[in-house]
Amino acid sequence: MLNASEGEARVDVTWRPAPSLERIEDALASYRGPIMEELGRLLPADARMRAVLYDPIREHALRPGKGLRPAICLATCRALGGGIEACLPTAAVLEMLHNAFLIHDDVEDGSLVRRDQPAMHVLYGAAAAINAGDAMLALALRPLLDNTALIGLGKALRVLETIADAVRHTVEGQALELDWIRHGAAAIDDRDYLTVVEKKTASYSFVAPTVSGAIIAGAPEACIAHLSRFAQSVGVAFQIRDDVLNLRAGERWGKERLDDLWEGKRTLVLAHALRQASFAERSRAERILRKPRPTVNDDAVVGSVDALERIAAAEPRVRDAIEAALAPLRKQVDAKRPDDVAFLRELIDRAGSLDHADSIAEVQADRALAALSDCAPWIPASPHASFLHDIIEFVRRRDH
Amino acid sequence: MLNASEGEARVDVTWRPAPSLERIEDALASYRGPIMEELGRLLPADARMRAVLYDPIREHALRPGKGLRPAICLATCRALGGGIEACLPTAAVLEMLHNAFLIHDDVEDGSLVRRDQPAMHVLYGAAAAINAGDAMLALALRPLLDNTALIGLGKALRVLETIADAVRHTVEGQALELDWIRHGAAAIDDRDYLTVVEKKTASYSFVAPTVSGAIIAGAPEACIAHLSRFAQSVGVAFQIRDDVLNLRAGERWGKERLDDLWEGKRTLVLAHALRQASFAERSRAERILRKPRPTVNDDAVVGSVDALERIAAAEPRVRDAIEAALAPLRKQVDAKRPDDVAFLRELIDRAGSLDHADSIAEVQADRALAALSDCAPWIPASPHASFLHDIIEFVRRRDH
Repeated sequence: MLNASEGEARVDVTWRPAPSLERIEDALASYRGPIMEELGRLLPADARMRAVLYDPIREHALRPGKGLRPAICLATCRALGGGIEACLPTAAVLEMLHNAFLIHDDVEDGSLVRRDQPAMHVLYGAAAAINAGDAMLALALRPLLDNTALIGLGKALRVLETIADAVRHTVEGQALELDWIRHGAAAIDDRDYLTVVEKKTASYSFVAPTVSGAIIAGAPEACIAHLSRFAQSVGVAFQIRDDVLNLRAGERWGKERLDDLWEGKRTLVLAHALRQASFAERSRAERILRKPRPTVNDDAVVGSVDALERIAAAEPRVRDAIEAALAPLRKQVDAKRPDDVAFLRELIDRAGSLDHADSIAEVQADRALAALSDCAPWIPASPHASFLHDIIEFVRRRDH
Repeated sequence: MLNASEGEARVDVTWRPAPSLERIEDALASYRGPIMEELGRLLPADARMRAVLYDPIREHALRPGKGLRPAICLATCRALGGGIEACLPTAAVLEMLHNAFLIHDDVEDGSLVRRDQPAMHVLYGAAAAINAGDAMLALALRPLLDNTALIGLGKALRVLETIADAVRHTVEGQALELDWIRHGAAAIDDRDYLTVVEKKTASYSFVAPTVSGAIIAGAPEACIAHLSRFAQSVGVAFQIRDDVLNLRAGERWGKERLDDLWEGKRTLVLAHALRQASFAERSRAERILRKPRPTVNDDAVVGSVDALERIAAAEPRVRDAIEAALAPLRKQVDAKRPDDVAFLRELIDRAGSLDHADSIAEVQADRALAALSDCAPWIPASPHASFLHDIIEFVRRRDH
């Protein structure tokens, strides 16, 4: 049990000897309270703007989620002897940025569900969702400027630079991945994948929280360097496991949940499966990967086209005319179909690509552990230090 | 003729006695050179990232445009005795932010053309365009941090706060406007419109450039306050005139150019026309305003639906079946049609709403002139001071 010192927001981290998924989730839940409170404070209270902008943002930000990024930031800072109050605004900013990326990602990927609820663009339209994401990027700046008074100028500027770099890495990783999808890139090697994941996931989700927390705690450079390596490796492992879980979810919830395959995301898993496939299979897979994901509107079009085809089949006199009229519609809905996605899933199963990806995640998790051990001279035993270790276990073993 | 002092980037502003649109455009062109050079420097040179992210961004940013925002920033700074080198990075950042907003706006509005070339989402898809806009928001941060070394910490932080506030105002204004469009708001009064325009246009396009330039030049508070009022009024006048020009362009280039009406934007012009219309006309206009703008895909659907309707009309035996099959498609393409937009345009013409809006722009321009005159004690005569006056004339008289 952590005794928060007086004047600090209260964080209870239950301390038990053996790491367990439950213990990590308890710890995440304990960090979450003060972070979400701080996050709420960052949103302007202007009554008029609330209805059209800040309430939807608040609702999105407060949906049940792990709050991994701010928790890592707080835990690192506390593990190195820093205070919670000094770190809370930065932690909340990291969660705000994460939400901005999620909202934009969902528009970009055409994903309809976020944290078990409709994605923001489903609720308010793509235009308002893009704008809400921009608003969250903008709102993230103010607390980082206010940090100058809270933690001193030098640390505040360094945190700002750390986070600015992370945001740049994120958009770079996203650009590389979108380019693969857009151009139907087939042969992605593991090194390409790791580059993208270091940029788009590890940097803002793990390196920036860890390094910011360490800067705020006043950690020495050598320690920050080890922590940065720890965060990079655990971040890569996290994304690989995330990809694997997305595909394993298909086993539990049915094929329609295989979001990454519908989207055509180039993962370590898919790259491995393509390498193991026959020439003919790979050609078919590449054709499938070049097809777009079906949109909501496509369903209406597909239904009408099917009905009209039945009419054409039954009435020879109008068959040719109907077929001709349907041609432009058919072209429009040349999107991936359920059997396309099932085919990709089968290639992955046959090649054992999920296990292959898991083994690479294990290597990264081991590296993370080694880097964290290198920090031992600066990090005394504490529930917060344990939490950092537990994050590695969490990444290895989480099943959702 | 301005003689740039040694060691400064060279800006030639031709100095002639009487204001003319040509003189203003010459001045804009002179400011543009060093700004675009600086803007190019802000983009990372990483070879791999250039192809997928930074080259498309560069191409968009360097398209022929007025460069109004950075020119205002430079002119204000120079008019108050500040140097060009001190101001260039901030000016370039303002142009970068403007590009980010344009790219996101074009996705949000479904606009296909930007600066006489295809909008970024048309060239690279909506996903890459949203991400490119995010990248430009992210890249804007670094030079503002580097300002601490260039202009000193106090000024750098104040410029950062000024620009952070402007970005927040912009997304707030955008949120209000998108909410009107989304909910088919009919009765917008002039005051509502002015609030939105102050937020979404005046703040980042005029107030932030002017105030940043003045801060960098070290202007006293009283002067900054007057300049801020000047910028706010000229910004509102600029947006009103922009709305009017969008509609007048329809006279020259044909109805399909009436972008704002297709989008259903609530302008001062449209609000006035609705107030002057009969009850029946207003009801029809409101129904039209609730319809979405047609998308590119709609054209294919509309063509097929028309062809299938002709088949149905000619073949009574399949008429009902075809009509039933078409129902979901028809619902999907219930977007605005050319005669809808022509009806709105006619209401505007009949009510004299363009002249009404122009008269309100004149009032704002007069206010801008008065506020600028209040700055006389701090701003000696110079080509840069003249440029600030000329901006008011430019807003009043520009025809494109």
